[in-house]
Amino acid sequence: MPPRSPTQSDQQKITEPVGEVERFLAAFIDGRTLPVNLRDAIKYALLGGGKRLRPILTVRCCEAVGGQIENALAPAGAIELIHCFSLVHDDLPAMDDDDLRRGRPTLHKQTNEAMAILGGDAMMGLAFELLATGIEDVALSGRLTLELATATNDMIAGQVYDTLPQFPEGLSDMERLKTIHRHKTGALLRCACRMGAIAGGGTDDQIDSITRYAEAVGLMFQVVDDLLDVTQTTEHLGKTAGKDSIQGKLTYPELIGIDATRQEVAQLQTQAHEALSKLDHQANPLRELCDYMAVRSN
Amino acid sequence: MPPRSPTQSDQQKITEPVGEVERFLAAFIDGRTLPVNLRDAIKYALLGGGKRLRPILTVRCCEAVGGQIENALAPAGAIELIHCFSLVHDDLPAMDDDDLRRGRPTLHKQTNEAMAILGGDAMMGLAFELLATGIEDVALSGRLTLELATATNDMIAGQVYDTLPQFPEGLSDMERLKTIHRHKTGALLRCACRMGAIAGGGTDDQIDSITRYAEAVGLMFQVVDDLLDVTQTTEHLGKTAGKDSIQGKLTYPELIGIDATRQEVAQLQTQAHEALSKLDHQANPLRELCDYMAVRSN
Repeated sequence: MPPRSPTQSDQQKITEPVGEVERFLAAFIDGRTLPVNLRDAIKYALLGGGKRLRPILTVRCCEAVGGQIENALAPAGAIELIHCFSLVHDDLPAMDDDDLRRGRPTLHKQTNEAMAILGGDAMMGLAFELLATGIEDVALSGRLTLELATATNDMIAGQVYDTLPQFPEGLSDMERLKTIHRHKTGALLRCACRMGAIAGGGTDDQIDSITRYAEAVGLMFQVVDDLLDVTQTTEHLGKTAGKDSIQGKLTYPELIGIDATRQEVAQLQTQAHEALSKLDHQANPLRELCDYMAVRSN
Repeated sequence: MPPRSPTQSDQQKITEPVGEVERFLAAFIDGRTLPVNLRDAIKYALLGGGKRLRPILTVRCCEAVGGQIENALAPAGAIELIHCFSLVHDDLPAMDDDDLRRGRPTLHKQTNEAMAILGGDAMMGLAFELLATGIEDVALSGRLTLELATATNDMIAGQVYDTLPQFPEGLSDMERLKTIHRHKTGALLRCACRMGAIAGGGTDDQIDSITRYAEAVGLMFQVVDDLLDVTQTTEHLGKTAGKDSIQGKLTYPELIGIDATRQEVAQLQTQAHEALSKLDHQANPLRELCDYMAVRSN
């Protein structure tokens, strides 16, 4: 099936699970005894909008292998906690030094740096607590914890490659860029998908298909991000545009130009569809999600 | 048995497991694919000295219920990773702003703030990865992960109570101080002990004894810390002395005076011994460790 452009009703269907994931996360945070200011900081960073791409992927990958949304809620919540922790720390003055996130002040601007450091730390810890408390089957809980811990560490390694570059010798610029992308955003997107397929009781073959889909879609997501950074306004993105170039970061448009970057997106979109070829109609939301991600504008 | 003063040979016996824990941790970090500068930062913060009190407690509590040191290494390594992550973030300029730790420059002084933020994040993630990969029995791994995640989050809450105080209304200064201590240091010390007893295959009764021991020793540790901050020099402590008073923090000597603080230490020491009354000679190292902690001078 060739990729097609998504309609508005596709987009509504794609984001359908968001409400349930957000209610689940809010209930989890409210059920945990925490200092009031820490709880407020976590909820500000966690529940203040955002595309929720990772938890949507977890839910849709769970359903694609025949699981129910209930099986996916704990891992979906955990991956979003990790993602939000990484954004909060990434925005700190000593890191990307960003004032704006999801159209609102970043957490350290809204509160202070100490709270942003500790709030981020707490969100990481709560992600693992959620997997440990929210899943009855201990073998499944252990397997998901391993997926999440490995991906979290790969993501942090990606932040280091991105912020404090020190690569093995002999890598080309494109190899460096792919190393950054595969770690910094790829690892969590892959984990979001794999946790969904695992929690949904997928077979090894199904988990393998989902993993290949995730790797294509994960790289595509970041290539599109590179494109948007040079083609969109700050207002439209809800975060500062043009930062990559100002900070002298490697990007696809910088290395191969805008047209070749668009071709790369189309190729990855095709790869993602091919990875799902053995999965039936239950994987249609994943196909639509991929097409939506290829043409997203923020 | 009344508490007695420890001899030098006691101290050697007490610290015996440190070498094995450090070798285990170094091998775990070296076995993980990481950017070179991130690996160096982690090893600097993790393997640069320190009392190793938490992993010693894990090993000794494991042995006290009849387990072997091999059963304790993964949780002992994980708790030390969490402890070291918390020190690195606590030392950051936006937090306690400390230049000296374990007699050497703090990680952000040795490298930079971004690396200290990311290095701390990575140590937390690696702690959970270690529990997920280092323990074959998935049920045990899951139980330890829950212990560690909960304690980590309680510790972070303690940092918030300490750094950005906002307490429920109506708490006395002493209740606030105990809330800080119970969270900030108590939670990890309790977790270190409980993980040891659980990994060692302790019965519910044994785990309960170990937990009561841990709660007494954990508070005692912090009360002694408060004392040392007002009675010792920076050089002797290996970290900045007198900071609590400069920063206007609540401490036992501040609230009840030095003599009453020393009495409190003695009472907690007795409580810790009483908690172990049903355990046999295998718990002797825990008894000696308690006595050593009561009289430590750095």
